[in-house]
Amino acid sequence: MPDLEPTLAARLRRNDDGLIAAVVQQHDTGQVLMMAWMNDAALHETLTTGRATYWSRSRQELWVKGETSGHRQWVREVRLDCDGDTVLVKVEQEGPACHTGSHTCFDDGPIEAVVGRAPGTTAR
Amino acid sequence: MPDLEPTLAARLRRNDDGLIAAVVQQHDTGQVLMMAWMNDAALHETLTTGRATYWSRSRQELWVKGETSGHRQWVREVRLDCDGDTVLVKVEQEGPACHTGSHTCFDDGPIEAVVGRAPGTTAR
Repeated sequence: MPDLEPTLAARLRRNDDGLIAAVVQQHDTGQVLMMAWMNDAALHETLTTGRATYWSRSRQELWVKGETSGHRQWVREVRLDCDGDTVLVKVEQEGPACHTGSHTCFDDGPIEAVVGRAPGTTAR
Repeated sequence: MPDLEPTLAARLRRNDDGLIAAVVQQHDTGQVLMMAWMNDAALHETLTTGRATYWSRSRQELWVKGETSGHRQWVREVRLDCDGDTVLVKVEQEGPACHTGSHTCFDDGPIEAVVGRAPGTTAR
């Protein structure tokens, strides 16, 4: 498998397992769909195939999202964050993003939380 | 410091450092602002004070976002993901979210990537 472009590879700050975090967002609605992990090979595949590809920590293998479920993610844009340890992947999601069948992995409802409001703002 | 509510604490799947990931999103625009980490105490503070609070891995201490910079994050909603290792924190961001002064930590421009398109869709 070819390598990542060297200047990009040099910007990555991988964790002890050689991974960076991937936040996955539906490109048009802005919904956050899921969080996953990428090694260099997964990022390279994501950037060159148009299909979001991750590193499965449980299976210890590359995981082309939707390869078995059909719930594929088509890459629209990829951005690296300021310290190089997280990518934001904007995708077009086919079907549900979550393995539970939910549209996103965050569909279980909000946790009870105190709502904070910036000084001078009103409820909306 | 009081503990997390026990049924919530039981849902968390912490990493080896006792942390869960936090994806932070502007509540109204859907912009993903940053990625950070929380231990139980940070999550508890986030849920009970209305101010997004993280665990600083570099300083090894609780970090009330904006406490020194003034770039505070006011909590609007918190959701736990399907496997309990990531929270989505929707906030109202005061000022820039990124320590570089950028509005988000993903403002450095897209990485060159092949754009994928689901079968039957057209460019948009």
